[in-house]
Amino acid sequence: MDIYKDFKFENNETPKYVQLANYIKNMIDKRKIKEGDKLPTIRDLSKRLGVNNVTIVSAYNKLKLEGYAYQKVGSGSYAKRKEVASNFRKEYSNALKKLSMEILSEVVDFTGETTAEVLFPIDDLKNIINEVLERDGANALLSDNRNGYTNLIYTINKVFWDNNLNNEDIIIVSGAQQGIDIASKGILNINDNIIVEKPTYVGALSVFKWRKVNLFEVPIEEDGINLDKFEKILQKNEIKCFYTMSYFQNPTGISYSIEKKKRILDLAEIYDFYIIEDDYLSELIYENSLEYVPFKWLDKRDRVIYIKSFSKIFLPGIRLGYLVAPEIFRETLQNSKHNTDITTSSLMQRALESYISGQKWKKNIKDLNDEYIQRYTQMKSILDNEFGDILTYIDPRGGLNFYLTLKDDYRVNTKELFMSLKKRNVYITPGVMFFTSQNDGQDSFRLSFYQTDKERIEKGMRILKEEIISIVNNQRGY
Amino acid sequence: MDIYKDFKFENNETPKYVQLANYIKNMIDKRKIKEGDKLPTIRDLSKRLGVNNVTIVSAYNKLKLEGYAYQKVGSGSYAKRKEVASNFRKEYSNALKKLSMEILSEVVDFTGETTAEVLFPIDDLKNIINEVLERDGANALLSDNRNGYTNLIYTINKVFWDNNLNNEDIIIVSGAQQGIDIASKGILNINDNIIVEKPTYVGALSVFKWRKVNLFEVPIEEDGINLDKFEKILQKNEIKCFYTMSYFQNPTGISYSIEKKKRILDLAEIYDFYIIEDDYLSELIYENSLEYVPFKWLDKRDRVIYIKSFSKIFLPGIRLGYLVAPEIFRETLQNSKHNTDITTSSLMQRALESYISGQKWKKNIKDLNDEYIQRYTQMKSILDNEFGDILTYIDPRGGLNFYLTLKDDYRVNTKELFMSLKKRNVYITPGVMFFTSQNDGQDSFRLSFYQTDKERIEKGMRILKEEIISIVNNQRGY
Repeated sequence: MDIYKDFKFENNETPKYVQLANYIKNMIDKRKIKEGDKLPTIRDLSKRLGVNNVTIVSAYNKLKLEGYAYQKVGSGSYAKRKEVASNFRKEYSNALKKLSMEILSEVVDFTGETTAEVLFPIDDLKNIINEVLERDGANALLSDNRNGYTNLIYTINKVFWDNNLNNEDIIIVSGAQQGIDIASKGILNINDNIIVEKPTYVGALSVFKWRKVNLFEVPIEEDGINLDKFEKILQKNEIKCFYTMSYFQNPTGISYSIEKKKRILDLAEIYDFYIIEDDYLSELIYENSLEYVPFKWLDKRDRVIYIKSFSKIFLPGIRLGYLVAPEIFRETLQNSKHNTDITTSSLMQRALESYISGQKWKKNIKDLNDEYIQRYTQMKSILDNEFGDILTYIDPRGGLNFYLTLKDDYRVNTKELFMSLKKRNVYITPGVMFFTSQNDGQDSFRLSFYQTDKERIEKGMRILKEEIISIVNNQRGY
Repeated sequence: MDIYKDFKFENNETPKYVQLANYIKNMIDKRKIKEGDKLPTIRDLSKRLGVNNVTIVSAYNKLKLEGYAYQKVGSGSYAKRKEVASNFRKEYSNALKKLSMEILSEVVDFTGETTAEVLFPIDDLKNIINEVLERDGANALLSDNRNGYTNLIYTINKVFWDNNLNNEDIIIVSGAQQGIDIASKGILNINDNIIVEKPTYVGALSVFKWRKVNLFEVPIEEDGINLDKFEKILQKNEIKCFYTMSYFQNPTGISYSIEKKKRILDLAEIYDFYIIEDDYLSELIYENSLEYVPFKWLDKRDRVIYIKSFSKIFLPGIRLGYLVAPEIFRETLQNSKHNTDITTSSLMQRALESYISGQKWKKNIKDLNDEYIQRYTQMKSILDNEFGDILTYIDPRGGLNFYLTLKDDYRVNTKELFMSLKKRNVYITPGVMFFTSQNDGQDSFRLSFYQTDKERIEKGMRILKEEIISIVNNQRGY
């Protein structure tokens, strides 16, 4: 469809380039032009509309200025929208909404995005809160430091970093999502270029798109991103930052090799960019072959913004995490947090501090590991024994997910698979959820065992296999 | 100083307009060019630098694109920075930091920005949290609805709005600051025009400046903004929204008349803009002459984004509030909240719900009113009896602040007054903190009785008077 066919310049006071820019904006808002669509070349469009080149250039510049387009060096202009919610994304998100409202015992939730099950001992929490209120009285409600509760900052530095960080660089945040938002507001401006992994966490993609930056995607391999493609992008574009999940990358489950981490840190220095390291799950390592060495530990030149979430493995409803800022961004990120919500709930910070500085923390992590490793082992063994012909995967060796790709003979669209599994009360996350383009990830999906005990895993995997085979048979016309 | 004197074009590959834009950006970052400074006219600068007009236009366009400049219709280009932290702002903020770390009994804190004193009964909180944990078990940690705890949303609608709102339009936020941030991210883009009150709340100014919008200021009068000036701006510029505090405007303490509110709502329809209403303190009304009718109640055409904080009058360290979205922005604002931090702490939302739906809420508000009305009356009487020659003020009839303007004979720079009062352990907020330009608010200041009991008010006011007179005498050469 040629959407410029219907466009005509009005003979009024509005300059032509403004008319054209408004028309294109309108088309983008109405999704006639899609996120990432290439706009016509200047030459082509000026010819078709019978106007001067300058009119088109000015219109495109106006679009860029207002965040409706971006330029790729040597490749032209592309459309950009703030929000990208395809119909399927809405479908998926509505399904989850329902799922979290009415948790039925028959449901098998492999999405890992709801939180019906909490492995945290609720009595511990009650006791900690009461202790804090007893000990601190009304002070428990007060913030003593705009970066976060001072003792919590000290405890984090001591327990997790052997006091190797500057306390001033630590900012308490309301979960990793807020950490990403704060980092984004603090260091990114409209039209900045950033690199993300392909596929990647959709919550981070949203934040970056809202910030109207230009996204470059680099494919994930077994030990991290593809470095050749990474460096090619760095050579051609001024990149401001690289967003990465160094352990159990979401969704692929891969972890970076130490060599790749070192090389990326070197590149950060050479090409002058920063690394946003989202460490959301590294406590759950099930194999000794996997060592815990985040980018931040290897970071000698202060190139890493480190973001740690406590939500997944600690207290899901509490929304706590922290961010470690490079010195150069310390003040900016502190201000960014302050502008976002002044400070995170003081009482919950005090409870977390008391929990970490006591010994219960370690026991709880061990208990979680014991439980999840069983689920991991079980799911892995079913995949190996029952799905060998059907799909492939990379062994995550930790975390809460498997990322699976269907083999050629069993290639079905995983959006379709989602829909038919949903009818049988089994929920998966289709690959398309983790890509910026709707054309990617069609034959892959993620299975999480975060919300499924062993019994549910067994049942869910059985239904999964049945549905894949049933769809394939249908396609083959059986 | 002519900062363009030292600028020379290099004979290299970088286009001239990029060189010039980079130079100006650098000057803005280094504060050689200040926020709001007018840039030279195109004609003037092209002459001085000996280049074509087009070079200057392109450079200015690049600056605008990157958020370093903005245009006023018919008036030229102006410099813009993301962060505006003058030396004095830093001085003030450091003083507050110290103040909140070591609250000495001798200190009189008239800033109202620390929270040493909590009038909330801590045992109530302990009991509520235990009740919630007892009742909901692990569910207390879980979010049942991405807009906020469902029962809290219902309770807010019932208790405060007589069920006149759509539950779907209510979003629970982590305090009013987050509400402003979410609204800003949701509906504002770079270079959008917005109107704010002059003077206004500095935390809102920061959010808007981070968003790189263009700010238009309209002076505050006794019953709201000056409508003539307001409408003139609306006629000449496409305005996206107006940010207002309808009751006890911070810092001036004024409340809008119902007539002005109605007129502004009409204008919103005529000129197609939205109103962000920040209702942070309306529970504290001390005089019957003042009726509680927020913009949102009068809003028949869904033009108001209403933001309510519970922090100041309820639980300061808990960070809870809510936002009511117009239907047109409902989804955008829900997504904006979700991108910001997924959701607000579930346990605290449940505690708040239980507190509001019980009867203790009303008693607590009454107790707060009883205490603050005494402080208000006392401060007012000291102002009337002791400061009649020295300063003027508008009676706020509620809230927690007085905003004072020194009379001609006692005009001293209130930044200076702040510094000398600080030496005597009395803290005020100089007027300059509430303006975008450092030249405004020099002879005014805010006194808050939020953190000062009657004894401290008496002592602080005595020292205040002594210091004003001492500085004035010094100026006169006595």
